[in-house]
Amino acid sequence: MAYINVPEGVPGIRSLALFRPETGQYLYELGQVLMRGPSPLTETEREIIATYVSDRNNCKFCASSHAATARYLLGEKEQMMDDVLKDMDNAPISDKMKALLRIAGKVQILGKEVKQEDIDNARATGAGDLDIHDTVLIAATFSMFNRYVDGLSSFTPEKREDYLEMGKRLAETGYAAPKIPQKV
Amino acid sequence: MAYINVPEGVPGIRSLALFRPETGQYLYELGQVLMRGPSPLTETEREIIATYVSDRNNCKFCASSHAATARYLLGEKEQMMDDVLKDMDNAPISDKMKALLRIAGKVQILGKEVKQEDIDNARATGAGDLDIHDTVLIAATFSMFNRYVDGLSSFTPEKREDYLEMGKRLAETGYAAPKIPQKV
Repeated sequence: MAYINVPEGVPGIRSLALFRPETGQYLYELGQVLMRGPSPLTETEREIIATYVSDRNNCKFCASSHAATARYLLGEKEQMMDDVLKDMDNAPISDKMKALLRIAGKVQILGKEVKQEDIDNARATGAGDLDIHDTVLIAATFSMFNRYVDGLSSFTPEKREDYLEMGKRLAETGYAAPKIPQKV
Repeated sequence: MAYINVPEGVPGIRSLALFRPETGQYLYELGQVLMRGPSPLTETEREIIATYVSDRNNCKFCASSHAATARYLLGEKEQMMDDVLKDMDNAPISDKMKALLRIAGKVQILGKEVKQEDIDNARATGAGDLDIHDTVLIAATFSMFNRYVDGLSSFTPEKREDYLEMGKRLAETGYAAPKIPQKV
């Protein structure tokens, strides 16, 4: 049960956006532009970064739903998502993604953990300003979503298959705020 | 020096919003509705929560600028902001604010740190769903801003007086995204 009176049975951040649409609207708009807008990072790469950070923040709802999204986008290569969560350093991803995920992992701890050396390492793999910016902002944004969802103890489905539909929706239609049911 | 090529001399999140206005726009709109929109928490209370969290996240830019905002709003009682930062438990604030700041402090660590007991304690002081929601979202949002600002090493003025003008602007005109200079 959530700590506040949100619509029953609606999972995670959707229930909070229905409780407080004034703020929910901008949270979804930020999600949409950051995760689906123009960026040198692919949508799949961005979902992998979001999942990696959410998993490190021990936020089961966000980690599960964004892992499902990344797997849907990866298609035949869906195992890559689990490889990153299990052992990022040895996962079959590019050196650039590894360097960016290391930055994201530091942002997850605290902003000041990111050092010039981390940035230099990312640039050496071909990362530019926008790659670095978007990585840091995705890691920071999910550090917010994770705290919001768990800090209010919002409904978190248990099983991996519970997230398949959410992953498909996030992959196909993006970050659209839930519609508030109209009273008749 | 920031890690990416942002406008020189522009401090903190303003420099990042100028570098990436696509996301900056929604960060400022979220700030405006959350910190200045309708809420059972006063603007001053919200700025105190934001400062408390930013200070705990060791984000000098956010802590200094929002402390300056809170002091400006507090007027003659400006010392209250420093009392909260120094020793929240014994600061001259209401029991309700103490209970909400304890929740904010747990969100700062991680969402799951917030327990039913913390919520019950806040309700016993008169806090309702919206007080609790807005406190958690402010703490989560500043955990994002803090990571964004420091993760990219954005320009952080040194002295307390460097933040007076920022505090006045945030208090008087709210969270308005910086205008992008037009090229002639």
